[in-house]
Parts: sequence; structure tokens; C-alpha cells
Amino acid sequence: MGDAVPRRVDHEERRTRIATALWRVATARGLDRVSLREVATEAGVSLGQLQHYFPSRDDLLVFAMEFMRRKNVERVTQRVAALGSPAASARLRAIAREMLTLDDRSVAGSLMNFTFLLEGIHNETLRGYARSQGLALRGVLEHHIGLAVAEGDIPVDRDPRREATALMGLADGLRAGFHLGLHTADEAWAVMDGQLARLFG
Amino acid sequence: MGDAVPRRVDHEERRTRIATALWRVATARGLDRVSLREVATEAGVSLGQLQHYFPSRDDLLVFAMEFMRRKNVERVTQRVAALGSPAASARLRAIAREMLTLDDRSVAGSLMNFTFLLEGIHNETLRGYARSQGLALRGVLEHHIGLAVAEGDIPVDRDPRREATALMGLADGLRAGFHLGLHTADEAWAVMDGQLARLFG
Repeated sequence: MGDAVPRRVDHEERRTRIATALWRVATARGLDRVSLREVATEAGVSLGQLQHYFPSRDDLLVFAMEFMRRKNVERVTQRVAALGSPAASARLRAIAREMLTLDDRSVAGSLMNFTFLLEGIHNETLRGYARSQGLALRGVLEHHIGLAVAEGDIPVDRDPRREATALMGLADGLRAGFHLGLHTADEAWAVMDGQLARLFG
Repeated sequence: MGDAVPRRVDHEERRTRIATALWRVATARGLDRVSLREVATEAGVSLGQLQHYFPSRDDLLVFAMEFMRRKNVERVTQRVAALGSPAASARLRAIAREMLTLDDRSVAGSLMNFTFLLEGIHNETLRGYARSQGLALRGVLEHHIGLAVAEGDIPVDRDPRREATALMGLADGLRAGFHLGLHTADEAWAVMDGQLARLFG
């Protein structure tokens, strides 16, 4: 037996563990019903440890959203990298596909988005974060739409900002309808696919 | 002075008063932060009286949603009646305009919709109600799209169900983006207007 070596805590790993615990509990029961103590239990840390990393509930929520956003960016990047095609129109389609992915993790993410939307009415921190995320996504979409116009794949009379707003609005609304059971994931994608076809004119 | 005449309670008026009180308090503070006691105080009734009309919180929420829905139907009906034009395409446009109205009452309504969406994850009563409302609206849109196709104002290759789903998704998502401050009400309408223009081909 060697001497006991003090185990170094991997802080990033612990933060991530707490954030994913939040996702699990929130998806199962709704974010507004979840206490920090429950998240700590789910993550296998004490409430004090959780509060060391996230002094307030808002801190944890923003970290969890940011964690989800990074995962989404990774997935989009992989999807785009796997394309082979360098055409902006193909990249745009890949991003739209990711915006409408409706697997378990993605569903948790969009429910979190709606929670931010509602809490944001009374909470400027959450609203500001959600708003900045929305603006960043719109910027990416505008960028690719502008490139696709330059490459001749989208008619020049299309306004990139307006088209980006339409794609985001459609994706958010279709996700909401999916959660309510108004349509299936396949039906949602068929609608988005038709939208892209018309955008590409 | 005449004899005291027992005042008859107008139950429908009182239900409506309670529902509008809920809207006011929920819009100001968020539905999940509102207690039935606060709604009773706002409506000028006792908690016991409120519970006489609405034994559970769900009963009150469903009544409040139904109240909002009836008001929306009235507004759409007035808008359509004022058109003069009997063309289905004009009626469709009027309905879409109402779906994207972003005044105070309408904002309260769409925040309520998002609340139903989130609470619906854990509450089958609310989810069922919200789902049936969504299906009814989609039915109305499909109906008018089908008529506009028959009248030659929408190309025959458009699928009414898919186009109705797109209009609803777009309206819901644009409202969410408006609440987050991603775009103005005018920008939201410009996007919807472009959507209708492409639908009419």
C-alpha cells in the first residue's frame, strides 16, 4: 500500500456532473419543481458542494444552458464536418436538421428554453442569457443564408435576417407542437424541409 | 326606500372576474408564482368563493384558457366579418394576423400557452386541453387552406395539413422570440407575411 495521495478534485467534471443531474431531474419533473437539494442528491454531492460551484439557482441554470449549448454546437459542427459538401446551402440544411432534432436530450433542452422564456419575464439574468443565445444562433443562420445567396443557391431577393428569423421561429414552434403531441418528429421535419425548399427557391 | 331585494349572484360574471384576475396576476408575476388566495384577493372574492367555482387549480387554469380562447375566436370572427372579401385567402390572412397579434392581452395568452406546455409535461389535464385547442386551430387553418386551394389562390401541390402546421409553428415560435426580445412585433409580422406570400405562391 502506498501513501494516501490527496485526490485532486476535477472541478469541471463536477460542474458538468451537477448540470447533467439538473437536466435529468428537470426533464422528469419540471424545472420549477426541482430544488437545489434534489439536484445535489442526484449528482452525488452535498448541497454545500453544489453551492460552492453555483452560489445561486440562476448560476446553475445558466451553466446548464451553456453546457447544453456547447453540446449542440459540437453536434452541429460534427454534422457539418461530415457533409463533405462545402456548400452553404448544405450547411444550412444540416443546422436546421439539428435545430429540429427531437431526441431525449434535445427535448430536455427545448423544455429548458421554454422555462427560461417564462422565468425570463421576471428574471433579467435568465432572459439576458436566453436572448444572447437566440441572437447568436440567428447570427449563424444569417451568415449561412448570406453565403448561400452569394453562392447562387438562394434567390438574391431573400432577406437573410428575415429568413433566419423564420427558420428559428418555425423550429421553436414546431418543437412546442411536438411536446403537445400535435405532430410527430417526422411531420415537424417535413414542414421544415418544405420551408428550406421554398427558401432555396 | 323599497324593501331590500336579495341580490342574485351572476355566476358567469363572477367566474369571468376570477379568470381575468388570474390573467392580471399571472402576467405580472408568472403563473407558477401565483396562489389561489392571491387570485381571490385580486378578484375581490374570498378563497372559499373562488374554490366554490373552481375546486382545483387546474379547473381555474382550464377555465381561464377557455375564456381566452373564446375572446380570440370573437376577435378573429370580427376581423373576418369586417373583411368584405369572401375569399378564403383573405380569411386565412386575417386569422394569421390575429395569431400574431402581440398586444397585452395576447401576450398574456401566449405566456399562458407556454405555461400549459411546461405544466403539461406532468399534468395530463392541462396537456389534453392545450392539445385539443391546438388541434382545433389547425383544423380551422386546414379548412381555409383547402378552400383557398379550391378557389385557385393556393397552388394545388400544397398540403393543407402541412401548411397549417407551418403557420401555427411559425406563429408560436415568433411569439416566443418576441417575448425574449429577439425581434419586434412588426418584424414578426413581416416574417409571417412573407410566409403567406410564399404559401399563395
